[in-house]
Amino acid sequence: MCFLQKAATNNAKTMVDATIAEKFDIKVILSSTSSNTIRIADLGCSVGPNTFTSVQNIIDAVQNKYLQSEGPAYRIPEFHVFFNDHVSNDFNVLFTSLPPDRQYFAAGVPGSFYSRLFPESSLHFVHSSYAIQWLSKVPEELLNKNSKAWNKGRIHYTSAPDEVIEVYAAQFAKDMTTFLEARSKELVVGGMMVLIMPGIANGIAHSDDPVGLMFNFLGSSLIDMVKEGLISEDQVDSFNIPVYTASAREITKLVEKNGCFSIEIIDLTLSRSVASANGQDCTMHMRAGMEGIISKHFGSEIIDELFDRFHKKTEELLYLLESRTKEGSQLLVILKRK
Amino acid sequence: MCFLQKAATNNAKTMVDATIAEKFDIKVILSSTSSNTIRIADLGCSVGPNTFTSVQNIIDAVQNKYLQSEGPAYRIPEFHVFFNDHVSNDFNVLFTSLPPDRQYFAAGVPGSFYSRLFPESSLHFVHSSYAIQWLSKVPEELLNKNSKAWNKGRIHYTSAPDEVIEVYAAQFAKDMTTFLEARSKELVVGGMMVLIMPGIANGIAHSDDPVGLMFNFLGSSLIDMVKEGLISEDQVDSFNIPVYTASAREITKLVEKNGCFSIEIIDLTLSRSVASANGQDCTMHMRAGMEGIISKHFGSEIIDELFDRFHKKTEELLYLLESRTKEGSQLLVILKRK
Repeated sequence: MCFLQKAATNNAKTMVDATIAEKFDIKVILSSTSSNTIRIADLGCSVGPNTFTSVQNIIDAVQNKYLQSEGPAYRIPEFHVFFNDHVSNDFNVLFTSLPPDRQYFAAGVPGSFYSRLFPESSLHFVHSSYAIQWLSKVPEELLNKNSKAWNKGRIHYTSAPDEVIEVYAAQFAKDMTTFLEARSKELVVGGMMVLIMPGIANGIAHSDDPVGLMFNFLGSSLIDMVKEGLISEDQVDSFNIPVYTASAREITKLVEKNGCFSIEIIDLTLSRSVASANGQDCTMHMRAGMEGIISKHFGSEIIDELFDRFHKKTEELLYLLESRTKEGSQLLVILKRK
Repeated sequence: MCFLQKAATNNAKTMVDATIAEKFDIKVILSSTSSNTIRIADLGCSVGPNTFTSVQNIIDAVQNKYLQSEGPAYRIPEFHVFFNDHVSNDFNVLFTSLPPDRQYFAAGVPGSFYSRLFPESSLHFVHSSYAIQWLSKVPEELLNKNSKAWNKGRIHYTSAPDEVIEVYAAQFAKDMTTFLEARSKELVVGGMMVLIMPGIANGIAHSDDPVGLMFNFLGSSLIDMVKEGLISEDQVDSFNIPVYTASAREITKLVEKNGCFSIEIIDLTLSRSVASANGQDCTMHMRAGMEGIISKHFGSEIIDELFDRFHKKTEELLYLLESRTKEGSQLLVILKRK
């Protein structure tokens, strides 16, 4: 979703490996099922290749754990991997890109992860990287001129009045509640879930959120285009990016309210990519993540112009980002189904 | 694959329903698994909608069986349905066409069913309609000028020398062996498999095979185009349709050799569609089934011309088909994993 994502998989890998080695009780999991299959789902997989790397890392870690636990060689588990994304995802590209030498059975699962996607107690491991920051929808209040949360002149909640932030936060809480409820049904007891998403430090103002900062620069590029009459004010007023950056405290509260998971790890990590990032990368990643919803709202003809303008602002953006990401911008959450 | 397919699902439905009611031991199947999920695979599903009808029929029959067996209401099974076809299948279209009110969890599985597609003992029901008559490849001998099975001037084995027929039959036997081996691993004990395919009566000459007859007419249309210099002789010589029509006797032998399945039903049924078929339907279905491989070999620019010529021959074809399909042209095979 943004250039901060690039380092996500690598940064998280060490902690996921260690948690699987320490906490994933493969003997208990395999003994609770009559079959010998470990089922893994990657939610919000897009078209690859990041999803293939993440899934392979999990399989490697589980296999190591199995070998270290001296499980019988004749029962080395098979892996069934489910790649999930919206029905509009290009599954044809995903399937064509599947690693030909993969040692697992692959399936694609179309649909929103804010609903049930799998039968009860059918999954052993869930992974999701840079996906659940996307809300299930744009909260309606943001578009209502009579609401205090009407988000006029902005495309996100950063630097917005508290009412706007609250509406976003409430939608995130609602979505995350639905997400946790669905996953608590689908995961077996002892099953694990790794969630990687943009995060903000506890107690930091949303106006200091690095992701939000990037959206502010995108928003100001749009406003410039309004001023020059290239797009209308109404179009910007009615556009809101349905992305929310949560803090560890918020996630903890929602997980505890759900009650079905123990929190094994919740950690805001530094994103090493900012220091080495340049304007080109930043623009390219922002465009890759946002082109779809922007085209849908404004029409695809504004895209080149918009990102040219965004690109010109990236020097200032990167300067500001460097100080804003010192406390970490990537939240790693590892849960275990109780 | 041809207009005979149209009636397949309906013709077979009654027998599949009855076999599930009588032979699908849902209590044994559910008790052998810690979960409460019935997993169904449709192999060679294409992009719908036939696959959705077939799958829904199976689910309805299994649910009826469950209710009649007075299984506890709190354990009404959930269904996980796997739609399989080649990786080149348009899964995006398939996923977009999924019935919105479906009462099952859906997944797409890319890959050849002449290989393992699922973990061991993970499926309870396999369905495949008009797919396994497709061989995994064109047997090489058909293209070898030094072989007695060189299939010069023909695109199929109907009306070919015995050597050509034998090469086709051997490839079918090899593929079916692989198919049964893979499915015997994937199906749980007690699991069932429904196979629907074009069939030929025991002891009937391959030259009287209705499917082959249609390919003969397609072949003669191509030969006409060679005579007029529209395509080259070499192109026709090197083109062979990798489709085989088996008899119940052949299938029985292969199933017995595999040894993992009991044959619950093997039946050559009449195909009611011939009587009501017309040249237009016949051409349309032949084109739908064959356009892909013909375009790949000859180039897509010959397609319109070829099927115009084929269409002109359909009156004669339909007249001949009527007598050739009296003994039945659709093979229904229902197997149970021992």
